[in-house]
Amino acid sequence: MQILQKSKKSKARTGKLKTSHGVINTPFFMPIATKGAVKNLSTYDLDELGTEIILANTYHLYLQPGEKLIKKAGGLHKYMNWFGPILTDSGGYQVFSLAKIRKIKQDGVEFQSHLDGSKHFLTPEKSIQIQQDLGIDIMMALDVCPPGDSNQKEIIKACDTTYEWAKKCFKAWQKTKKKQQLFGIIQGGIYKKLRDQSLKQITSLDFSGYAIGGLAVGEDRKDMYKVLEYIAPKLPENKPRYLMGLGRPEELVFAIKQGIDMFDCVIPTREARHGRLYQFCTQREKGAIKLFDNLAYKTSIIKNEKNKLDFSPINNKSEVKLLRQYTKSYLHHLFKIQEGLGLRLATLNNLEFYLDLMRKIQSAIRQGKL
Amino acid sequence: MQILQKSKKSKARTGKLKTSHGVINTPFFMPIATKGAVKNLSTYDLDELGTEIILANTYHLYLQPGEKLIKKAGGLHKYMNWFGPILTDSGGYQVFSLAKIRKIKQDGVEFQSHLDGSKHFLTPEKSIQIQQDLGIDIMMALDVCPPGDSNQKEIIKACDTTYEWAKKCFKAWQKTKKKQQLFGIIQGGIYKKLRDQSLKQITSLDFSGYAIGGLAVGEDRKDMYKVLEYIAPKLPENKPRYLMGLGRPEELVFAIKQGIDMFDCVIPTREARHGRLYQFCTQREKGAIKLFDNLAYKTSIIKNEKNKLDFSPINNKSEVKLLRQYTKSYLHHLFKIQEGLGLRLATLNNLEFYLDLMRKIQSAIRQGKL
Repeated sequence: MQILQKSKKSKARTGKLKTSHGVINTPFFMPIATKGAVKNLSTYDLDELGTEIILANTYHLYLQPGEKLIKKAGGLHKYMNWFGPILTDSGGYQVFSLAKIRKIKQDGVEFQSHLDGSKHFLTPEKSIQIQQDLGIDIMMALDVCPPGDSNQKEIIKACDTTYEWAKKCFKAWQKTKKKQQLFGIIQGGIYKKLRDQSLKQITSLDFSGYAIGGLAVGEDRKDMYKVLEYIAPKLPENKPRYLMGLGRPEELVFAIKQGIDMFDCVIPTREARHGRLYQFCTQREKGAIKLFDNLAYKTSIIKNEKNKLDFSPINNKSEVKLLRQYTKSYLHHLFKIQEGLGLRLATLNNLEFYLDLMRKIQSAIRQGKL
Repeated sequence: MQILQKSKKSKARTGKLKTSHGVINTPFFMPIATKGAVKNLSTYDLDELGTEIILANTYHLYLQPGEKLIKKAGGLHKYMNWFGPILTDSGGYQVFSLAKIRKIKQDGVEFQSHLDGSKHFLTPEKSIQIQQDLGIDIMMALDVCPPGDSNQKEIIKACDTTYEWAKKCFKAWQKTKKKQQLFGIIQGGIYKKLRDQSLKQITSLDFSGYAIGGLAVGEDRKDMYKVLEYIAPKLPENKPRYLMGLGRPEELVFAIKQGIDMFDCVIPTREARHGRLYQFCTQREKGAIKLFDNLAYKTSIIKNEKNKLDFSPINNKSEVKLLRQYTKSYLHHLFKIQEGLGLRLATLNNLEFYLDLMRKIQSAIRQGKL
C-alpha cells in the first residue's frame, strides 16, 4: 500500500491500494455482496455509485452455488458481472454465527450448513482453496471469532487457534502464484494483552495486509473504542489495515483517526431494507450526529407519515439520477406497498452516503482537517 | 386514431394513437404499474425497454396513496416519474375481484377496502373524478365485470348497469375540458346476442375508444376466441380497440388478427416474479408455440437445474445491457437466493419480449405478413 498523506491531527492516512482489478483510494468502505450480489442492486448501480471494491462471503458462496461452479464461470468477477476488486472473508465468521452446529478441531472447523444441514469441514487450506477458486483479489485467513461476551479463557483459545490457522493459510498461499493478496486477522477481544500477543503472532507472518477481527461482536462500545485506539496504531504502517464489520459513520471516523484504511459493514444496505435513510446535514439540525469539521449526518425512516407529502427529491445533490428524480413521497409509497424499487432506491441512497463519506474523509485528510 | 395500414390477410391494422403525453404505435401492449410502479423496475428501465405506455389501477391508487395526494404531487406522471402516456382502468374490475364485500347499487358500488376494511362508494362520476385527479391520458368508464361462470341473467344485469354507468361517465367527462380521453367498455360475457346489444349501447356514446371487457375472466378459451372473433371486427373502425386483461402471446396475435389495437396483461411481469422467462425461438424447438410467419416462442423456468451451468447471457440479442451481460447461471443463482436483482432481470426479459412481440407484429402487418 502506498501512503500518500499522513494527518498531523490524528493517525489518519490516505493512500492507494493496488489489486489485480484496479487501484483503490484509502480509506475505503466495501459494500457487502454476501451471496455474490449487493442486495437489490445491479453491478451497474455499483458503478454509478463510484464503488471501488466490494466484499463477498466465502461461506455463503461455498455452500451456494459452490466455488467450483464459480470457477467454471471464470471466477466471481465474471460470474457476478463485477470487474472491480473483490475481497472475501474466510468463511470463519459465518461458520460461527450462522452454521447450525460447529465444532472447532485442531485442523479446522466442522459445521452443518444452515441451508440443508449438510456436514462440512472447513480447514485453513480449504478456505484458501475456495477463495482461490473464486478468483478474488484479497483473501482473508481463516480465524476464530468468539462472541463479544466470551471470557478471557475462550479468547485465549481463539487467539491460539487463529495463529495456528494463520500459519497454515500463509503456507498454503506461499505455494500459489500469489496473484491474490492474503490478509491476516488479529483477535484478542477487549483484552489489550491478548491483542498485543495476537498482533505479534499474526504480524510475524508477512501477509499483504492485517485486519482487526473480533470487534463489534456484542461488546460494549466504549471497550471497543479503547481496544481500537490501543491496537490500530500498532499495526504495520506500510500495510493496509482493515477493521472488520464496522460500523456507524462516527465509528468509521473514529477508526480512521486511529489509522484504519478499510471497512465493511451491513449497516447501509441492511438499514436501507428497513427504510432507514442516511443523509448529511448541518450540525445544528435536530438529530444530527457530528462527524468531523462541520460535517454531520442524520437518519430518517422513510415510512414515517411526514414523508407522505414531501415532494422533494430523495437527495437533490446525489450523483445518481434516480435519487434526484424520485421524491421522498413516492419512496414512502414504495415502502408502504413493499415494492422492490423502494429497496433499490434506499440502498442506492445509503451506499452513496457511505461512499461519499469516505471520499469526504479522504479529502479532509489531504486538507489536514482530520 | 390514425390507421396507417390494414392487413389483407386478416383484420389486423397498424397505426398511431395520439395522447397528451405522446404518440403510440398500434397495436401495443401496456406493462402494468398497478400501484404506480411496474413491479421491480424503475421508469428508466421502462425507457430502456422502449415502453410507450403503461397502465395503472384506479382502485389501488385511490386507496393508497389516494388520488388527492397524487394530484398534489402534480399528477401520476410526476408522482411516479414516468412521462409517457398512462391509461388507468376505472377501478370496477378490482372492486369485483379484490374488495372484501361489495354491493352493486343503481348509482354505483359499495365496497370495503381489501387493505383496512374501510367502506367506500364508487360511482361512475367518482371514478371519472379520481382518474382526472390522477391526470392520466386515457380513462376507462366504470363497468360491471361479472366472473366467467356467471349465468345469462347475471350477465344481462351487468350489461344494463354497465350501460347506465357508461352514460353517467360520458356525461361527467363531457363537463370536463376533455384533455383526457375516455374509453367505453363492452360487456356481454360469452353470449353473442348480449355482446351485440352492449356494443350497440356503448358505441351509441361517442367515446375516444372502445374496450372489450369481461373476457379472460375464467371462461373457456374456445368460447373466448369465438366471442372475440365475433365482436372485435364490429367495433368502430376509426377508434382504438382495447382488449382488457389479455393475454398469452398467441392470444395477442389472435386478437390482433381480429382488429384489436391495445392490450394489458399481468402475465409478463407476474410470471417473471415466478421465474418463468419468455423468449423467441424457431418453430422446430422443443416446446415452441407458433405465433405467425416463422415466429415462435417458448418459456422456461430459470430455477430449473439445467440453467445452473448455463453461462450464456440471459438474452444475447437484447437491447438491454443487463440482459446481455448477466448469465442464465447467475440469474438461476439470484432466484435461488431470492435476490431482488433476479426479479428485475426476469421482469426486464419478459417485458422486452412482449414489447418486441408488438414491434414484430407492427412490422409484419406493414409487410403484409399478418
